[in-house]
Amino acid sequence: MTFPIAAASDAANELGTLFIVLFAAKLGDELFRRLRQPAIVGEILAGVVVGPSLLGIVEPSRALDLFAELGVVFLLFWVGIETKLSELRAVGRAATLVGVLGVAVPLLGGFALGEALGESFATAVFLAAALVATSVGITSAVLVELGALARPGGRTILGAAVLDDILALLILAVAVGLVAEGDFDATGLVVTVVLSLAFVAFFALGGTRIARRWPQLLEAPRFAESPLLPAVLLCLGLAAFAAQIGLAAIVGAFLAGLIIAETKEKTPIEGEVAPLYAFLAPFFFVSIGVAVELDRLASLETLGLVVLVTLVAVATKFAGAWLGARSLGSKEATIVGVGMVPRGEVGIVVASIGLTERVIDQQLFGVIVAMSVLTTLIVPPLLRALLRGDRHHLEPVGAGG
Amino acid sequence: MTFPIAAASDAANELGTLFIVLFAAKLGDELFRRLRQPAIVGEILAGVVVGPSLLGIVEPSRALDLFAELGVVFLLFWVGIETKLSELRAVGRAATLVGVLGVAVPLLGGFALGEALGESFATAVFLAAALVATSVGITSAVLVELGALARPGGRTILGAAVLDDILALLILAVAVGLVAEGDFDATGLVVTVVLSLAFVAFFALGGTRIARRWPQLLEAPRFAESPLLPAVLLCLGLAAFAAQIGLAAIVGAFLAGLIIAETKEKTPIEGEVAPLYAFLAPFFFVSIGVAVELDRLASLETLGLVVLVTLVAVATKFAGAWLGARSLGSKEATIVGVGMVPRGEVGIVVASIGLTERVIDQQLFGVIVAMSVLTTLIVPPLLRALLRGDRHHLEPVGAGG
Repeated sequence: MTFPIAAASDAANELGTLFIVLFAAKLGDELFRRLRQPAIVGEILAGVVVGPSLLGIVEPSRALDLFAELGVVFLLFWVGIETKLSELRAVGRAATLVGVLGVAVPLLGGFALGEALGESFATAVFLAAALVATSVGITSAVLVELGALARPGGRTILGAAVLDDILALLILAVAVGLVAEGDFDATGLVVTVVLSLAFVAFFALGGTRIARRWPQLLEAPRFAESPLLPAVLLCLGLAAFAAQIGLAAIVGAFLAGLIIAETKEKTPIEGEVAPLYAFLAPFFFVSIGVAVELDRLASLETLGLVVLVTLVAVATKFAGAWLGARSLGSKEATIVGVGMVPRGEVGIVVASIGLTERVIDQQLFGVIVAMSVLTTLIVPPLLRALLRGDRHHLEPVGAGG
Repeated sequence: MTFPIAAASDAANELGTLFIVLFAAKLGDELFRRLRQPAIVGEILAGVVVGPSLLGIVEPSRALDLFAELGVVFLLFWVGIETKLSELRAVGRAATLVGVLGVAVPLLGGFALGEALGESFATAVFLAAALVATSVGITSAVLVELGALARPGGRTILGAAVLDDILALLILAVAVGLVAEGDFDATGLVVTVVLSLAFVAFFALGGTRIARRWPQLLEAPRFAESPLLPAVLLCLGLAAFAAQIGLAAIVGAFLAGLIIAETKEKTPIEGEVAPLYAFLAPFFFVSIGVAVELDRLASLETLGLVVLVTLVAVATKFAGAWLGARSLGSKEATIVGVGMVPRGEVGIVVASIGLTERVIDQQLFGVIVAMSVLTTLIVPPLLRALLRGDRHHLEPVGAGG
């Protein structure tokens, strides 16, 4: 029993916030479905409406962050479960090229833009780093919604996103090393990157082999009830470990999904993860909208900068990823190019580090957040238009997807 | 992408904590199942082990509190879905008597104990208030595990727990009013209690009628995908509202479940809520264990006090509830008497309010927390022994239940 006068009502207030966020997501979702627009865009805009920009009834908070993180973790876990490692390997070469070129071109473009704007070297490096990493959550959700996870472009995006994240980690580490005074730890950096590569290689190759060779490790008989909890533990454990070594938590979750996909328990786990994803993913989409602060953008100069940075972000990522995916044919290469564009929460995280390190000022921070959200908003309708008419066999799940 | 040096690694640390809590819960659960003991007790003890008392790798935190709250909310939501309102009404008279006597006897007993120990009037009142309210979460989980929700004793416990919570709200409000200097708001108290009664009556009677008369309000066709999100919204909304007016959030969740139980969507919703409950409920059980601080109890005098307070808590609640349930026959009355004993998180909440108001000292706080956990630990084995051999038709769900 909680009581209004006591500290115990914290949990009550937080339940209220969760309710408002979920309700807003559902309204945005329904509205956009009726307008035949992507539901995810409706959820992000619902976040803008309830967030500090407009109504101000939901503030960014640690609880919301945690639910958002769990939402995208379960989303990528589900995507991993839906992905066959053999199919991922089949697009390995294209995915590698997309990952490398999709990082290199935005990096150079972002740095050139910073220099052209007359920013300092450090600021240009941070702007470049913010333009680098893809937020694969948004694209995954659209691919799930349209049943396009299994097509070559879809698989290439997933493979490239993992590599992309490792490269982005490297670049961000170098960027922070360049601006943090005198304490650049080159050895630490090398260790981190080697650890990340080893982690991905071990679990993507070794983990799935273990799951195939000793399937009983994950089977229900050892666990009295459903196989859900062992699977969720694998997902949370790898996600937390990935985050601990500096990778995105979702990389770990995706690898956990790949492992589950090779087990006999795949089908029941799939069915039980879907409700978790349906419940948690809306927090991820809404929280992106909540991060927007429209009043930071209230000048013509800032708006101009938003347009410029967003154009560079879209053009460089599309060009790099499209070049990398050329071998898949023109249509798939276009899907990959568009699918890699969203920066989502990743651009926002890099910008906040830059803000903390004082190489990104409040104006540029607002601009990068706006760019991240805009690249995230434009992709779902474009991907939908590209994919419409040739749906693959997968069924959409839950309300977020 | 998060990076170890940045504030962004908060979410990563919290993912790690969630992993540890869930992993500990699963280990405790498995161990106790193999020892043929109630899984819930294993999960609570896992919390004692990883919490500050022993290993100290998990501290009480707002994130853990929120997950614990959501866990018990989804647990009671699921219990509500499994409960037929008509069956609840059939035990209405017994449930009312159990609710009233199950509050009155511990209240008098706790006050008498406080006076006998030579405590001040205010302290005796708070001790009494801490002995009053039942935490129906634990008993519900045991009833679910043993498939005994539908038997008369099970339904009586659920009905009585709702009334119990309203009476406890009243008593806690009076207790706080007595000790808070000069600002006792009698009108506010009356308004709160009337509001609580109106809320419960409206949703328990009106809500289910609305659900039966206009079933399309909750049906899938209006919502493009699964009926899970509308159902979860109803659950979170009523839980947050209940908490806002001073009731336990779980009372709202239980009422939401009763409403869903009357709709055509009951079966799919049931299946989708089960994974949410399986994932979240362990946080509730573990967090009870994490709240224990064994080193507060490290004196013979304190241990004696723990035994004394626990004996009074068990004896008075059992006597009151058993008296109230006599009309159901001796066996069901014993089940009800035992089932109402756990104080769980409720006793802990009251004790922390008393600590804040400075009428409960550190020693008595530790004693009340220990009493709450002990009453919670002894009930599952007792209920199991009482219920073994005549299982009803319900199947257990998830890992917590």
